[in-house]
Amino acid sequence: MVTIAKDNEVVTLINVFTVAQEDQQRLVDVLVDATQAVMRNQPGFVSANIHRSLDGTRVTNYAQWRSTEAFETMLQNQEAAEHMGEAAKIAQRFEPHLYEVSFVDEV
Amino acid sequence: MVTIAKDNEVVTLINVFTVAQEDQQRLVDVLVDATQAVMRNQPGFVSANIHRSLDGTRVTNYAQWRSTEAFETMLQNQEAAEHMGEAAKIAQRFEPHLYEVSFVDEV
Repeated sequence: MVTIAKDNEVVTLINVFTVAQEDQQRLVDVLVDATQAVMRNQPGFVSANIHRSLDGTRVTNYAQWRSTEAFETMLQNQEAAEHMGEAAKIAQRFEPHLYEVSFVDEV
Repeated sequence: MVTIAKDNEVVTLINVFTVAQEDQQRLVDVLVDATQAVMRNQPGFVSANIHRSLDGTRVTNYAQWRSTEAFETMLQNQEAAEHMGEAAKIAQRFEPHLYEVSFVDEV
């Protein structure tokens, strides 16, 4: 089960892809395929969570990695680069940032 | 415990704030305060999860609401608007979108 918590030992990648509405489903498919074919087999992968915006204009990957180093090692992987290149071609823009969880509140 | 799952009955707000590095902590503080003072008391609030980017330039709120209607009702709340106005003044830009979870994979 994927959880969000301050004491999870992960770094979080939040990557927001801006996309034409007619390409949103195709981008989701490419990111799902990239996760299943490549990402989940990389050392330090914890989870990928692909979100589709209700307005059709964004796809956001909320992903967890064991460490910044594990994420950066993945970026050097040729197969990962090819899959992400395919996503980059569909998207108009993408903005990846690595995060730590500062605060969690739930009711 | 905050979880991400396809069958969660929530809509997800992912709001990416762009911020000057020297203002990142202040923005985190304002969003934490808004959550504790106002948001968590609104009908349909499920969770707020405030993330700070490691490069210092982003703060992202990954929040869950029971429904789009609950989120939109909150937007009409005067006290919520005041708190979010304070965050908007600190940020250079903010991009809120509502999402559904399309795909989850974890190892």
